[in-house]
Amino acid sequence: MDTETLIARAQAAHARCIDNNTLEDWPEFFTEKCLYKITTLENFTLGLPAGLMHAFSRAMLIDRITALRQANIYEKQLYRHIVGLPAVLGTEAGGLVRSETSFLVVRVLREGQTDIFATGRYMDLWELSGERPLLAERVVVCDSSRIDTQLALPL
Amino acid sequence: MDTETLIARAQAAHARCIDNNTLEDWPEFFTEKCLYKITTLENFTLGLPAGLMHAFSRAMLIDRITALRQANIYEKQLYRHIVGLPAVLGTEAGGLVRSETSFLVVRVLREGQTDIFATGRYMDLWELSGERPLLAERVVVCDSSRIDTQLALPL
Amino acid sequence: MDTETLIARAQAAHARCIDNNTLEDWPEFFTEKCLYKITTLENFTLGLPAGLMHAFSRAMLIDRITALRQANIYEKQLYRHIVGLPAVLGTEAGGLVRSETSFLVVRVLREGQTDIFATGRYMDLWELSGERPLLAERVVVCDSSRIDTQLALPL
Repeated sequence: MDTETLIARAQAAHARCIDNNTLEDWPEFFTEKCLYKITTLENFTLGLPAGLMHAFSRAMLIDRITALRQANIYEKQLYRHIVGLPAVLGTEAGGLVRSETSFLVVRVLREGQTDIFATGRYMDLWELSGERPLLAERVVVCDSSRIDTQLALPL
Repeated sequence: MDTETLIARAQAAHARCIDNNTLEDWPEFFTEKCLYKITTLENFTLGLPAGLMHAFSRAMLIDRITALRQANIYEKQLYRHIVGLPAVLGTEAGGLVRSETSFLVVRVLREGQTDIFATGRYMDLWELSGERPLLAERVVVCDSSRIDTQLALPL
Repeated sequence: MDTETLIARAQAAHARCIDNNTLEDWPEFFTEKCLYKITTLENFTLGLPAGLMHAFSRAMLIDRITALRQANIYEKQLYRHIVGLPAVLGTEAGGLVRSETSFLVVRVLREGQTDIFATGRYMDLWELSGERPLLAERVVVCDSSRIDTQLALPL
């Protein structure tokens, strides 16, 4: 299977994990030592710190999920990711592959309202040598600067 | 061609059939004896009956299209499906393949208003042995519980 | 690589070019003599002229980008394309390949508002014999008749 296809399927599986609310599996999409951050295009362009979410390891991602479960956020709302095809940008040291992928996330409140929650791109670094693709790095760059401050959710 | 690709292209063809308003071809995506239902995540999770739409054969789907044409619903609105990549979940008795695919449907009214009509996932069972992929089962699970009651349209 | 995959990746690269605001590269997705137009489904169905945008060569597309840069439109808003899988419809004279692809474009204003800007389908004619796929023709058929009159932007 070629690299684009491999990454496209990993993206679909990742989105499915969040949308189906099986968040306990989410950290397993990442390498043990990893970088995960959510930022805005404005901060990203200006080189400012991420602000919205920042994690340096799979253990921190697990903590995040535990916190989310305690806050019961998923009781009240659902997410639906629609993800574009990845652009493979090149291979880096250690055989890691860099890709960029557009996303659109819709939020559905239990009371019924549906709206566009976020759009942007995933700037990823993939480890593809193992049994399944793992994210060594994911920087989620949101198009809008006005992101819901409640955004402690994986994107 | 591998199974994921085969299903992904069948999904795109299915969406195109609805969006291009060639609904008379829509029942041909299904096996003769089939299950088609539209339900909400809430009903699906609680094991409650579908409510929104229920058909047990291609003949019933043909009836549905005839009814839709008489109601002239497509004169007033258009749909645009955006479909994710399918997750292939496994193979069942008789070689049928189970998959799950995210979707987003936008509704465009002739007067101009555009909004998100529905999001959710297709839970499908495919017969892949024939000339083209056919749906032996499609359960459309909508994320929102507040679905337009006018929803007699294929999703 | 098969034709569908080739076109799907070209579509993703095209969308990325616009969304990442590297518009100067946009005309390079087209053949030197090409047809590019944006129209509505209503005009398209009735055989009426496009109205929204019309270009007959790569040079005209370059002019368009120059005009856009002078108008500074991209300072105030961003676009995010989500593109479906292409349906390959057939091969025409000279080996050109016809395809049809659904799209959804979200507009994100700098002040924060996000909405669906346009949905529709790309009706394309591809030259696939070169180093990378080129558009000999792109007719963008928008679902809604109420398109922002400011629409001088590539879709």
